[in-house]
Amino acid sequence: MTVDDATAVRHVPARDVPVPAHLSPEAQAMLSLPPLGDAPASPALDDKAGWRARTAAQNEMVLAAMARRAAKIDADVEDREIAGVPVFVIVPRGTPADDPRVFLDIHGGALVMGNGECCRAMGLTSIPRTGVTTWAVDYRMPPDDPYPAPLDDCVAVYRALLEDHDPRDVIVGGSSAGGNLAAALILRARDEGLPLPAAAVLLTPEVDLTESGDSFHTNMGLDSVLTSSLMATNLLYADGHDLADPYLSPLFGDFTKGFPPTFLQAGTRDLFLSNAVRMHRALRAAGIEAELHVLEGAPHGGFFGTAPEDDELDREVRRFVDGHWRT
Amino acid sequence: MTVDDATAVRHVPARDVPVPAHLSPEAQAMLSLPPLGDAPASPALDDKAGWRARTAAQNEMVLAAMARRAAKIDADVEDREIAGVPVFVIVPRGTPADDPRVFLDIHGGALVMGNGECCRAMGLTSIPRTGVTTWAVDYRMPPDDPYPAPLDDCVAVYRALLEDHDPRDVIVGGSSAGGNLAAALILRARDEGLPLPAAAVLLTPEVDLTESGDSFHTNMGLDSVLTSSLMATNLLYADGHDLADPYLSPLFGDFTKGFPPTFLQAGTRDLFLSNAVRMHRALRAAGIEAELHVLEGAPHGGFFGTAPEDDELDREVRRFVDGHWRT
Repeated sequence: MTVDDATAVRHVPARDVPVPAHLSPEAQAMLSLPPLGDAPASPALDDKAGWRARTAAQNEMVLAAMARRAAKIDADVEDREIAGVPVFVIVPRGTPADDPRVFLDIHGGALVMGNGECCRAMGLTSIPRTGVTTWAVDYRMPPDDPYPAPLDDCVAVYRALLEDHDPRDVIVGGSSAGGNLAAALILRARDEGLPLPAAAVLLTPEVDLTESGDSFHTNMGLDSVLTSSLMATNLLYADGHDLADPYLSPLFGDFTKGFPPTFLQAGTRDLFLSNAVRMHRALRAAGIEAELHVLEGAPHGGFFGTAPEDDELDREVRRFVDGHWRT
Repeated sequence: MTVDDATAVRHVPARDVPVPAHLSPEAQAMLSLPPLGDAPASPALDDKAGWRARTAAQNEMVLAAMARRAAKIDADVEDREIAGVPVFVIVPRGTPADDPRVFLDIHGGALVMGNGECCRAMGLTSIPRTGVTTWAVDYRMPPDDPYPAPLDDCVAVYRALLEDHDPRDVIVGGSSAGGNLAAALILRARDEGLPLPAAAVLLTPEVDLTESGDSFHTNMGLDSVLTSSLMATNLLYADGHDLADPYLSPLFGDFTKGFPPTFLQAGTRDLFLSNAVRMHRALRAAGIEAELHVLEGAPHGGFFGTAPEDDELDREVRRFVDGHWRT
């Protein structure tokens, strides 16, 4: 290992990295799968048909992977339109009719996929983490509706939610790109004078579309889920807006103006490890209550939701949200 | 990137990893230094003179690096012998005579160095993190006094401390190998029927002498401070005892039997990242209050204690300990 004087680049030699033998069998099996491979080549930014086809194909894969888990969740799902935005309102069976609590779930999918039935499935699989009525926002997306449309939709639903809900009964969260939009909606709602929710849950959040974190380099090749930069989709989403704007990269927000207590998570092999670590530090530097949880050996998104390590994370989130509702 | 079917080894190609441009200039400068290089070749396990010479040389280096910071700390230091163990009792200037609080500081140094004047300097540099009277334990070490002598000394001092201190006025902590001994002394004191201290502070702790964590592989070549396995010193320390015994590798302790609230830290490039992450998860799984802080881009031990990122960590530790004293 040497360091270039000129650029301080560290040359790390090729390595063989074994699957950690202390992980659960399920986690070891997941890490032993061949990596997903490079993401399909990104279409040109103006090739809308190409992006739509890519999203459809990837949604199909995601849905196939999640359908079984989602089907096990004992909940009623109502398709609603709220503030002009499609929202899946998911009510866990047995929820008292007068329970005012709502988890506002912003789906992941790299800001270009995860909509429709995927959004529904992701909302359902968030139920074990929250245990409460969940509004899963099926926000508009690129290529047809780039920034600010997706964020506009999320803010509009949050605003509508507050019309008949105390903000202390609302927690906002999301994974990956959903963590981006969840954090961005809180910043924008705050800037527009809306009250903060009771808490935020940001799981392996894509809070830096500039990809400036160390783990975008250090974990490249180690993360078996995110196997390359997401810059093409970031640029498609941004549609010419500054990637470093806090509404696009909430990591760069001014948290001294207020942010709710926040739960953050990533994995040690996660391309977004630095996103979570830096968001934790940024919130803490502003004096915001924030807690960080890192899953050993985990790539982006954990172990497909099927390992005991994933269940343990769900229990941590549940403990966190249970501690932050008004009641 | 491919995966061997046989062993699920991930082949990660050689990479050029830049210094993150968003870190402080001080942190960037530290990461731009040539790595420390391979640790000096380890002497044979029975070559006591070789180990002594190696320790002396490394202590000199560590002391040179710390002396200036230690000299800036406004505190009185008294050399005492407590329970037969040399202890530097460090009292920050202005400490009220009736302040009962003591931070029991177990020095780092890979379990084979960091003693004597290094122990004194490390104790002094811990003062900004704790703000209270500190007992820095100059425990015996290999090659002459391997396990269990070092742990015996730490437990003996803790036992003596409790003779005239309420355990709620005592917090135990250490960095690196000091994190090993701090956690091990708590486990052993507990098993011997002593009360738990008010809290523990384990900074980039060497809690797993078997080196089974993922970051022993994933961060090899990225950590510019720990540039190779420490197994030779681990074996020297263990002196034939089982490396996986919880008194040698406290990560494997049974925390359901009790452990105090714990502050844990590591860096994203830290060879001991998995140590901290797994200790956090193990404590949380047992329902123990524990918080994890990870420094972006940091190798083992942070940025030589000279970067704003190090100061920020000191402030987090200070907030944590201030929240856990009895008074």
